[in-house]
Amino acid sequence: MQENPLQLLINPASIATVGAGNNPMKMGTLQALSIIKNGYRGKLYPVHPHDSTVLGLKAYPSVHDLPEPPDLAVLIVPTDQVVGLLEDFGKIGTKRAIVITAGFRETGAEGRSAEEQLKRIAEQYGIRFLGPNCMGIVNTQISLNVTTAQLDPREGFLGLASQSGTYVTQVLSYLRKRGIRFSKAVSVGNEANIDLVDVMEYLGEDEHTRAIILYIEGIRNGRRFIESAQRISRYKPIVAQYVGGSKSGARAGLSHTGAMAGPDILYDGMFRQAGIIRVHSIEDLYARGWALATAPPLRGKRLGIVTNSGGPGTAMSHTADQGGLEVPPLSAELQEEIRPLIAAHASCANPVDLTFNLDTDLLSTTIPEMLMKSDEVDGVIVHGAISTGFMKEIYPQVAPMWTDLSEEQFIAMYKKDLAETVSLPRKYGKPLIISTFFDRDDHYTDSYMNGDVPVFFAPEKAAEAMAALLRYKEIRERKDIVAPVLPRPISATDMIIKAALQKRKKALDEYESKRILSAYGLPVARGSLANTEGEAVYAAANMGFPVAVKACSWEVMHKTGKGLIALNVQTEDGVRQAFHAIRRASRDDMPVLVQEMVKGSREFTAGMSRFPGFGPCVLFGLGGIFMEVIRDTVFRSAPLSATEAEEMLFDIRAKELLGNLRGMPPVDRVSLVNILQGISHIALLHENIAEIDLNPIIISGSKPVIADALFVLKN
Amino acid sequence: MQENPLQLLINPASIATVGAGNNPMKMGTLQALSIIKNGYRGKLYPVHPHDSTVLGLKAYPSVHDLPEPPDLAVLIVPTDQVVGLLEDFGKIGTKRAIVITAGFRETGAEGRSAEEQLKRIAEQYGIRFLGPNCMGIVNTQISLNVTTAQLDPREGFLGLASQSGTYVTQVLSYLRKRGIRFSKAVSVGNEANIDLVDVMEYLGEDEHTRAIILYIEGIRNGRRFIESAQRISRYKPIVAQYVGGSKSGARAGLSHTGAMAGPDILYDGMFRQAGIIRVHSIEDLYARGWALATAPPLRGKRLGIVTNSGGPGTAMSHTADQGGLEVPPLSAELQEEIRPLIAAHASCANPVDLTFNLDTDLLSTTIPEMLMKSDEVDGVIVHGAISTGFMKEIYPQVAPMWTDLSEEQFIAMYKKDLAETVSLPRKYGKPLIISTFFDRDDHYTDSYMNGDVPVFFAPEKAAEAMAALLRYKEIRERKDIVAPVLPRPISATDMIIKAALQKRKKALDEYESKRILSAYGLPVARGSLANTEGEAVYAAANMGFPVAVKACSWEVMHKTGKGLIALNVQTEDGVRQAFHAIRRASRDDMPVLVQEMVKGSREFTAGMSRFPGFGPCVLFGLGGIFMEVIRDTVFRSAPLSATEAEEMLFDIRAKELLGNLRGMPPVDRVSLVNILQGISHIALLHENIAEIDLNPIIISGSKPVIADALFVLKN
Repeated sequence: MQENPLQLLINPASIATVGAGNNPMKMGTLQALSIIKNGYRGKLYPVHPHDSTVLGLKAYPSVHDLPEPPDLAVLIVPTDQVVGLLEDFGKIGTKRAIVITAGFRETGAEGRSAEEQLKRIAEQYGIRFLGPNCMGIVNTQISLNVTTAQLDPREGFLGLASQSGTYVTQVLSYLRKRGIRFSKAVSVGNEANIDLVDVMEYLGEDEHTRAIILYIEGIRNGRRFIESAQRISRYKPIVAQYVGGSKSGARAGLSHTGAMAGPDILYDGMFRQAGIIRVHSIEDLYARGWALATAPPLRGKRLGIVTNSGGPGTAMSHTADQGGLEVPPLSAELQEEIRPLIAAHASCANPVDLTFNLDTDLLSTTIPEMLMKSDEVDGVIVHGAISTGFMKEIYPQVAPMWTDLSEEQFIAMYKKDLAETVSLPRKYGKPLIISTFFDRDDHYTDSYMNGDVPVFFAPEKAAEAMAALLRYKEIRERKDIVAPVLPRPISATDMIIKAALQKRKKALDEYESKRILSAYGLPVARGSLANTEGEAVYAAANMGFPVAVKACSWEVMHKTGKGLIALNVQTEDGVRQAFHAIRRASRDDMPVLVQEMVKGSREFTAGMSRFPGFGPCVLFGLGGIFMEVIRDTVFRSAPLSATEAEEMLFDIRAKELLGNLRGMPPVDRVSLVNILQGISHIALLHENIAEIDLNPIIISGSKPVIADALFVLKN
Repeated sequence: MQENPLQLLINPASIATVGAGNNPMKMGTLQALSIIKNGYRGKLYPVHPHDSTVLGLKAYPSVHDLPEPPDLAVLIVPTDQVVGLLEDFGKIGTKRAIVITAGFRETGAEGRSAEEQLKRIAEQYGIRFLGPNCMGIVNTQISLNVTTAQLDPREGFLGLASQSGTYVTQVLSYLRKRGIRFSKAVSVGNEANIDLVDVMEYLGEDEHTRAIILYIEGIRNGRRFIESAQRISRYKPIVAQYVGGSKSGARAGLSHTGAMAGPDILYDGMFRQAGIIRVHSIEDLYARGWALATAPPLRGKRLGIVTNSGGPGTAMSHTADQGGLEVPPLSAELQEEIRPLIAAHASCANPVDLTFNLDTDLLSTTIPEMLMKSDEVDGVIVHGAISTGFMKEIYPQVAPMWTDLSEEQFIAMYKKDLAETVSLPRKYGKPLIISTFFDRDDHYTDSYMNGDVPVFFAPEKAAEAMAALLRYKEIRERKDIVAPVLPRPISATDMIIKAALQKRKKALDEYESKRILSAYGLPVARGSLANTEGEAVYAAANMGFPVAVKACSWEVMHKTGKGLIALNVQTEDGVRQAFHAIRRASRDDMPVLVQEMVKGSREFTAGMSRFPGFGPCVLFGLGGIFMEVIRDTVFRSAPLSATEAEEMLFDIRAKELLGNLRGMPPVDRVSLVNILQGISHIALLHENIAEIDLNPIIISGSKPVIADALFVLKN
C-alpha cells in the first residue's frame, strides 16, 4: 500500500514558511509564530525577500538559498506567486506543501485555471499538497500548530478533517474551555491535490486518533469515501456534519471552497452506508466526537442516571429514551443499598435523584460506582456534581459570616483530589458522561475535562452523546459487507438501449424496461403489448381478469391522472373501452400494455439516479402515491452488497410495513434485496441508463412484484 | 377579573422566612442570604426558635411574634412542620406563601395526604401558595432573589415558569455568562395551589416580561393552559420544553414532582394549538426565549448573513434553509456597494464572506448596516466579530515582538465603543443575531450581551434562533380563533349509547356509530344491515355494485385480516359468498353490513381520545394501513374552532395529499374541517363516548366519506 501523503506532511522534520515576516498582524507571521510558540521541535526556515531574520530566526532570501529541502513548505503569499513558489520547492526536492493562499477555484474561471497550473506543477515534481484556500494543520503529538490561534499543548485524541478552515483555528479557545483536544486537525481547503478522504484515511491509521470528525460541504469521490469509511468505522468512530444539502447551503458552499454538494437525503444515505454518525451542528461534531474518542465503548443500551435535581434527570431520561436507550428501574436490592445514603424524599429508582445535597462524593463517586459495579446499567450520566463553582456563587453571600476566610481560602476548602471519581470509566470499562451548568471555573468540571471524561453544559446534550455511543455500538456490530459479484451483462439489454438511442428516445417504454428487469431475474408483472383492440382482448383473456390497461411509450413517463391507464378492468368489453380511451387520450397508434392486476395493499418503490461524485445510487422507499407525499425514501451508492440492501429496508420510517401487519404475511425480504441489488447491477453494467424508477412495487402475498417501470436514458 | 395570585407573591413588601439560621451551609440560610445580598428593599423577618438575630437581622421566636403579617411567608423547614406553620401564618393574616420543603405528593401516600392537608389549610385562610417541593422565585424588577444562587442584578425580560427548581437556581451563573436575564422566574414545585398556568398568566400580564419560557413535565389543566396560551401568544412569545412524553421521561417526572404526563405527540399538538414554540433542550429554552425577548420582530423570511469564514456561513445558510428561512442572493446594486470593501477573493452574494480580515468594523457594523438598511433582508446574522478574545489568543505569540506592551495594554488597544454596533437592531427594527466561538472574555461578545443582542456559541444555533423568530411571526399572524357553537345534542344518540351500555357493550357497532355520525351531519358511506342472505343481496342490488360486506358487531373492533370483511364485491353471488364466509369466520347470527364501495386512493383518519388533564382530544392524520405505520397524525384539544381544525390539516407531513395531486382534485377542506369539528362536538355532548375512530375516511373525488367508524364507550 502506498504511504498516505499526510504521513510526511503532518509529521515533518523541517518546515519552510513563505509569507511570514516581522509584522505580527499578518496571517503568515501569526502562523509561523504559532509553530514557534507551540514548541515544534523540528527545523523552521523562514523565506523572506528582504529581512535577514524573521521572528528571531535566520531568514533565507529565496527557496534556492535554503540549507536543505524542507519536508514541508507552507505558502501564505499573494495568489499570483503561489505557482512559481511551488515550482521552486519542487526543484529543490520538497515533496509536501500547504497552500494557505486563497483566490483559486472558489473565485471563478481565472482562479480555476491557476488551480490547474498548481496541480500540474505538483504532478511534475511529485509534490502532494494541501489547499489552496486552507487554514493549516495541527498535530499535538509533535507540538505542531500551523494555525493563527493558540493550541492546548497536551496531546489529544480527536482527528478532524474539515472543509472549513475556521474549524481548525477560530475554535481553539472554544475547545480548550470544553476540554476537547485534537490529535490531528487538517483544513483541506479546495482539495486540489490532497482531499478529505486522504485525511480521513490517514486519521484511520493514526494510532493517536481515537475518533474522527468530518466537516463536509461536498464530497468529490463518493465511492472511495464510502469504502474507506466502511473499513475505518469498524474499529474507529467517525462523525460527520454535512451542510451542502439545501439550496442555500449548496450555494454558500460553492462560493466558499467550490465544493460540489448533493441533496441532503443522498448524504444521509451515504453516511448510513459508510457507518458514519451524522450530526447537525459543529458543536455536536466536536462534543460527540470527543465523547466517542474518550469514553469506553458502550456495551448495552441500559443507562443509569445520577442527579441532584429532578428536572435534568427527567429531561435526560426523556432524551435518552428518544435516542433508543433505556433507563431501567434499578433492582430492589440495589435500591435498598442506595436508600440509606440519600434523603427520605429522594428517589433511588433511576434516575437516582439525591435532590439538594452537599455531599458531592455521593453524587459524583459513591453512587455512580455502585451503578457501574452492578450488572444493571451499561453507562452512567451524572448531573450536577459541583464544588468550587457553586462556592464561588455563594461566597459573596456567606462571606459576611465567614470573615476569617478569603474567597481563595474558602474555595480551596472545596478542592479535593478527584482522581478516583475521574477514573471510574476506566476502572469499570463503562462510559461516564457528565452534565453540568458550571464551566472550568468549577473544580469538578475542570477535573473531568483534564481527566478526559466528557462534559456537557446541558443535560439533553449528555443524553444525546450517550445515544451516539449506542449508535456506534450498532455500527461496530454491523453485519459484514461482502462486495457483490456482478452478473454477466445481458446483451439483449444493450440492444434495447442502443435501438432506443438510435431513435433518439430519451427513455425506454414500460414494456422494454420490464424486459430488461426480467432478463436480470427481477419479478415483473406479466404483460403483453397490443397494437390492436383484438390483441388487447386476446392478451387479457389469456392472462385472466382483472387486468390493467396502459399506454406504453417512452414519451409517456407518468400515466396517472391523464387518462392513460385503466386499472382493475374486469371484462373483455372493459378492455376494449380502455384501449380506445387510451388512444383517444394520446394518439391513434399508441401501443397498449395489457398487464395482470397485481393485488396487494403494500406498495414500495425502488430506483436509481446518478449523482456527480457518487455515480449510480439506489433508492428504496414507500411507493405509490405516498412516494411524493411522504418522501420516506433512502439512498445507497452502488455496488450494493446484500448487507447494505437489507439495511436500506430497515432505514425507512414505514419499515413496519415489511413485517406481519393486519393479518398480512411478512414481506419476502430476500426478494426485495434482490431487486435492489439487481438495480445496482443494471446501473453498473449499463452506463447509458441515467435513471431507473420502479413504482409501485406491489407486495402480492409476501412477494414483491414490479408493477410499473421506467428507464431514463443518458443523452 | 380576579387578581393573579402571583402579583402579591412575587412583589411582596415584606417577607418572613422560616428555616433560615446562621449556618450558611443550610438551604434556608442560603436563600435568606440571597434575599439580603441581592438588595431586596422590602422588609425581611427571620423566624427562629432559638437565635435572636439571624444573618444580622432581628429574629422572631415564632410566627405570632412577628411585628406585622408579612405579605409573603417562605418555609424551608422539616416536612412535618409545614402544615402547622402555614396555619400560623393564616391566623395572623398572611395571604401568600412559598413552601420550599419537599416530601409531599412526590413521595407516596403519606406525602399525598400531607399535601391535601396543606391545601385545606390554604383554603381555610385564603392563602395562595407556591410549592411544596419548589426552589423559589426571582423578580429582578424589585431585586428579589429567593434562590440559593447569585443573580445578575440587572433587570431582565425573560419570564420563566418551571416544574424543575434547578432551572431557577443551578443555572444562574450559566445564564450570567450567556447574558440571559430573567424578569421573573418561578419554580412551581408540586403545584398544590398555584400552578404553572397561574404563573404563565401572570407573566403574560407582566409588562417587564417580553417572552415566556416554560419547563414542563406534565400539565394538569390542559384546556385552561391552551386557552391562556392562545390569548398570550398573540402578543408575547411563549416557548416550552416538554420532557414527560416518553416512557422513561414520564416515570422520572412522576417520581420528581408527581406530574401527570401524556404522550409526546399529544403535547406537540397542544403546543401548536396554543401558539407555543416547542424546543427540546433547556439550553434552547433559555437561548431562543432570550432571542424572542430581545430581538425586534422578524417581518419576513429573508436572512442576510455576514461572516469572516465560509464554514459557519455555509452551515448557517443550510440550517436557516431547513428552518424555512431564505438566504437570497443580494441584488447586483448592493453587491457592487459591498465589493470594494472586501478582498478580491471574498464573496458578497449572501452570505457576505469577508474571509480572514482584521477590520472588525466592516464585519460587525458597516456591512450589517448596509444589509439592514436595504429592503433585501428581514434579519441579519453576523458570525465571527471578535476583538479582545482573538488578541488574547495571539498575545502569547506576538508578545516577543511587542515588548513595550503588557497583555492588558495590548488588549486595551482593541477595546472600543460598540454602542453603534449594538444599536443596529433597534435602529432598523430588524433582528440581529450573533454567532461566535468567543465568550464574554471577548469585548464583542460582552458588548452584545450587555446590549441585549442575542449571542450563540454555534452558527447553527444562531440560525435556529432566527427560525424561531419566523415561527413566532407565523403565530402572531395566525387566523382568529372563534369559539365554536355547539349544536343541540341529538337525543337519538343518547338512546343508542344507553341501549348499548345496558347490554354491557363496550363499544357501538359500525352501523350504530355511523348513525350517530350521520345524525350530526357527517358524511358516511351508505349501508344497510342484513340478518339474512336475502337481505344482504337485496341491499347490495339496491345500492348498486360493487359493495363491501362486513361483519357488524361491537365485539368486532378490527376486521382486516380476520375474514370479517369482503371489499369490492361485484355480483349478487359474491354477496352471498361473502355473507356466509363472514358468518363462518365469526358466528351463526352475526349481522352483516352491506355498504357502498367508496372509490378513492387518498385515505385519512380522524378520531377522538380522552386524556387525563386534557379531556377530549381530536386526532387527524394519514389513514388506512399507513395510520399505524407512518404515524402521521396530530392532536388538538376540544372544543375545536374552524381555524384550529384547518391548522390540523396542514400539520401532517403528508399535507400535499390535500392538494392537487396526480390529476386528483384538491380535497374539500371545509368538509374535512366539518368532520373534525363534528367529532369535537359529539365528544363534548356525549361524555359516555370514550373514543372515536374513523378510519379510513376516503376522499371520493374531492369529498371525504367516512368508510368505517368505531365508537368505544366509557364503562
